[in-house]
Formats: sequence, C-alpha cells, structure tokens
Amino acid sequence: MTKQQLFEQITKKNSYLCVGLDTDIKKIPSHLLKEKDPIFEFNRQIIDATAEFAVAYKPNIAFYEALGAKGWESLQRTIEYIPQECFTIADAKRGDIGNTSGLYARTFFDKASSGLDFDSVTVAPYMGSDSVMPFLEFEGKWVILLALTSNAGGDDFQQLQVNSLQQPITSNQSPVTSLYEQVILTSQKWADSERMMYVVGATKADKLLKIREIAPEHFLLVPGVGAQGGSLEEVSKYGMNKQCGLLVNSSRAIIYASSGEDFAQVAAKEAQAVQQEMEKYLQMYLN
Amino acid sequence: MTKQQLFEQITKKNSYLCVGLDTDIKKIPSHLLKEKDPIFEFNRQIIDATAEFAVAYKPNIAFYEALGAKGWESLQRTIEYIPQECFTIADAKRGDIGNTSGLYARTFFDKASSGLDFDSVTVAPYMGSDSVMPFLEFEGKWVILLALTSNAGGDDFQQLQVNSLQQPITSNQSPVTSLYEQVILTSQKWADSERMMYVVGATKADKLLKIREIAPEHFLLVPGVGAQGGSLEEVSKYGMNKQCGLLVNSSRAIIYASSGEDFAQVAAKEAQAVQQEMEKYLQMYLN
Repeated sequence: MTKQQLFEQITKKNSYLCVGLDTDIKKIPSHLLKEKDPIFEFNRQIIDATAEFAVAYKPNIAFYEALGAKGWESLQRTIEYIPQECFTIADAKRGDIGNTSGLYARTFFDKASSGLDFDSVTVAPYMGSDSVMPFLEFEGKWVILLALTSNAGGDDFQQLQVNSLQQPITSNQSPVTSLYEQVILTSQKWADSERMMYVVGATKADKLLKIREIAPEHFLLVPGVGAQGGSLEEVSKYGMNKQCGLLVNSSRAIIYASSGEDFAQVAAKEAQAVQQEMEKYLQMYLN
Repeated sequence: MTKQQLFEQITKKNSYLCVGLDTDIKKIPSHLLKEKDPIFEFNRQIIDATAEFAVAYKPNIAFYEALGAKGWESLQRTIEYIPQECFTIADAKRGDIGNTSGLYARTFFDKASSGLDFDSVTVAPYMGSDSVMPFLEFEGKWVILLALTSNAGGDDFQQLQVNSLQQPITSNQSPVTSLYEQVILTSQKWADSERMMYVVGATKADKLLKIREIAPEHFLLVPGVGAQGGSLEEVSKYGMNKQCGLLVNSSRAIIYASSGEDFAQVAAKEAQAVQQEMEKYLQMYLN
C-alpha cells in the first residue's frame, strides 16, 4: 500500500485507528476455546466488528509465536482474513545483521516462503543500517522503525543525550540531542516517508512537536493510547500533518473491552467511539 | 544451566565453541530435500557430528520463522534433539514493552506454551529495562543482551558518544563514552553475571579490553568469527576471564563447509579445528 492509498483510506473512513491484535489465549472469552482455532476465531470476529472504523490492523507477533507452530497458523489465517483495504503491520520489532534481517523480511513479506504477506514490519534500530535495509528490498513494503517507545524503560537509552553525527536538515531545526532523534535523522538516509514510518509512544506526546521538526512528512505509528494511558487528543494535536501522518494503535482497550460472548459487539462500540473522536480531530488538525 | 555448569562443560570439552544453526532451506545439501523435515535432518546430522567439540548451539530464529509454522516445527525438533549438556541460545533479538516481552519469554522458555525450552535468548536493549526483565522471571534462564554487534551498521548508533548516566562502578574504570558501554553498565542493575551475558562482535576485538573493565565477570557471546572475518586469537586474548567468559559462535564456516553428502563430516572437521585452536588459547589465556 502506498502512502497516498493509506491517506485515502483515512479520509474515507474518517479514522486513523489501528487495532492491535494482541490475542492472548489466556484472555479471550472462554466460549471460544471450543473452536478449532480459538485465536483466529477471536480475531475474525474482532475484524468483522471493527473493520469499518479501523484503517490498520497490527498483530503483535509475540502473542502468536508464544504458541509455537500452532500460533503461526493462527497468524497466517488472520493476515489472510484482514480486508485488502486495511494496512497490516507485523509488530515484531525484529532487527539483525544483514543476511538474517533478509530472512526476517522473508518471514513477513514473502508469502511463498512463510505464508505471510504483511504491508509493514516494526524494526528495532540498535543494529543500524544493514539490519534495516533488507526489509526495504521488498517493493512496496514498509519499515516502521522504533524511535521513542511508550514504555517506561524506553527512557533508559532513547533519551540519552548524544553528540550529533550530522547537521539538522534545515536551519530552523533544533540541534539533535537525544538518541531517538539521531535514529530518526540517520534512518532518513535509508528510506523516505514513502517507505518508512516511526514508532512514537502516545505517552510521549510532548515530544511530537520536536519530532515533526525533523520528520514532517512521515507517518508515525503511535501505541500507548488506551491501556497505557496516552492522550489521543494531544497526539492528534501535536502529531498530525497534512496527510494525517498518524496511525494510532489501541489493543487491549478495544479487543478486551468485554470478556463475554458480546466481546465483538463491545469491541465495535469502543472502536467506533475512537473513530468518532478521530473524525473530530481530523476536522480540527488536518491542514 | 548455571554459569558454573557452563564453565565445567568448557573445561571438559576444552572448547568454548557455539555452533550457529543458521539453517537455510536454500543452502542445505540437495539430497536432504527428500526428507520429511529437511531442516531438522540437517541440524540433527550437524549436531551429531559437532557435539563433542561444541559447548553451545545457537539456532538463528529468523531462518526458522521464514518458513512459517513448518519452520517452528523444525525448530522444536531441533531444540529437543540438542544434548542436555549443551547450552542453547535462541538467537531472536527480541524486545518489546513488558507484557509483550513476557510473551516472547514464554515463546523461548515455556515448553508447555510453545514447545520450546531454550537456556537463553538474545535481546535488543533499545526499549530498556521493562523490555528485558520479563525474560529474567524464568528461573535459571539467561538474557544475552546486544551490546556491540559485529555488523557494519552496528556503528550507526552503538558507538555514539553519550553523556553517562552513572559513575563507573569502580574508580579505575574509564569514563563511559559510548552507547554500548552505557547499555552494559545500566543493564547490570537488572541482573548479574549469573543471568546475563552480552553480545560483542568478534570484529570489534579491540574493544574487548575496555568491555572487560566494566564487565569483568560476564560471559560474552561473540559472533563474527568465520564468515564475518573476526580473529579468534584476538577475541580470546582480550576477552577471556578466569571462567573463560566467552562463547564464540561460528555458523556458516562450519555448517556450510561442504555442500555435498559429506557436509556433516566436513562440519565436524571444521568444528574440531576450532576446538583445537580454543584448547590452545585456554592454556594460554585462562587465568
């Protein structure tokens, strides 16, 4: 999916909601456990119920691989089931030396090899350029690079002050001072905003203005609204650009809104509420 | 496996060799493709041939998951087949927010969930403390944290100069100046050398002296000898401590030493040659 196609979906649905499929066998409603593939059955019903309110789905790969081979089968069924017009994100946070990252790219992008065909994958930046480039060799696929994550531990290293390796791109930008900003600047040499997005946690909304100085055109994948406590309004106010530029993820607050047999209807209601709030922010902040 | 047990294996086998199982369906000898599970069959023969010369095995998870559910089945068979006395490493480079890292820990450590039961897993440090701690909740299991990796892209961020967050542990240590050193120092608050190791690439052997100042007791997992060009002698000279403290990995140079029907015998020969070199260094540098 191209950036323009993604923006078209956003304007069509008046939503930049990404539903996170953190599907935990220990948390899904118990009546599903009698199904042949309870994980897929849960996902199928969640997708059916939320697809009109969401532009993207993000299976969190940990939840599938924790079940071994069986989990990968559920993941494959899920990715095949997600409607074509929705952007799909393998939230895998992979990254390794070049030849190994090439295999991870096959995993998520090469259906003939793994059975999976995602639009994008989240990648950790620590190992640098050659850990990221192999993902970009798959035409039309996206890398979503970790920049500033939503968890408390993110502060251990991401906000360390570093000596900048390069001048800011334009003179009105602030000098680079933090590791996550250096990640955003350096990685712009690897791909532009048509192929790369950044992860920026909703719990760090105060940093979005500065991030928009150094990455004005990029889409940002924003987790941390919902269970983790980030504010959708702040994220939208400080992060939105002229093509929206935001995919805001909600996982637990939507998919586990009810633990009963009505889980899918309640999830739809939650997703719709978020979509309606997003519609308002699109009118206010899209420029 | 405890640190003491690992050291006992090293002294028993006179080896600190880790064989990397980067088993690629596109590279294994063609006569194996008629087997029901060619990946496992290749691994089985490699393990049989090299177990007397190696103290550890390191399946590179990318190579298995690139094959989807089928690959995870091969991985499960492989990990079950590795002799009990060998240390096992899931080279997965995972790391995510706490609840998700908990699922990744289940993947590699909780046999009842995933079918896998590794001794250790490699973890990326970018997301900080709560991305690492869930792996340490599994008693007796190890985290092997990325510090200074062997690839060229490792230099993009790992060697950035950072403002140190803490004083060095003892006064005779050099001031902290690089991100990877900060990773080593900060992470020592999360676990000691009985539960944590660091990845230090063999191509960065010149940095080992400095690393030993800040992590004198830790085991280091050292990839990059062999296909990537690192020197085993330099790594041993600068990296060895009084319990050896090194697991040196070789993948391609051993498992793909021959592409013919004799691949296992040739792999054994290569592994033996490395073991004999290691035996010499253990006599020279173990102190």
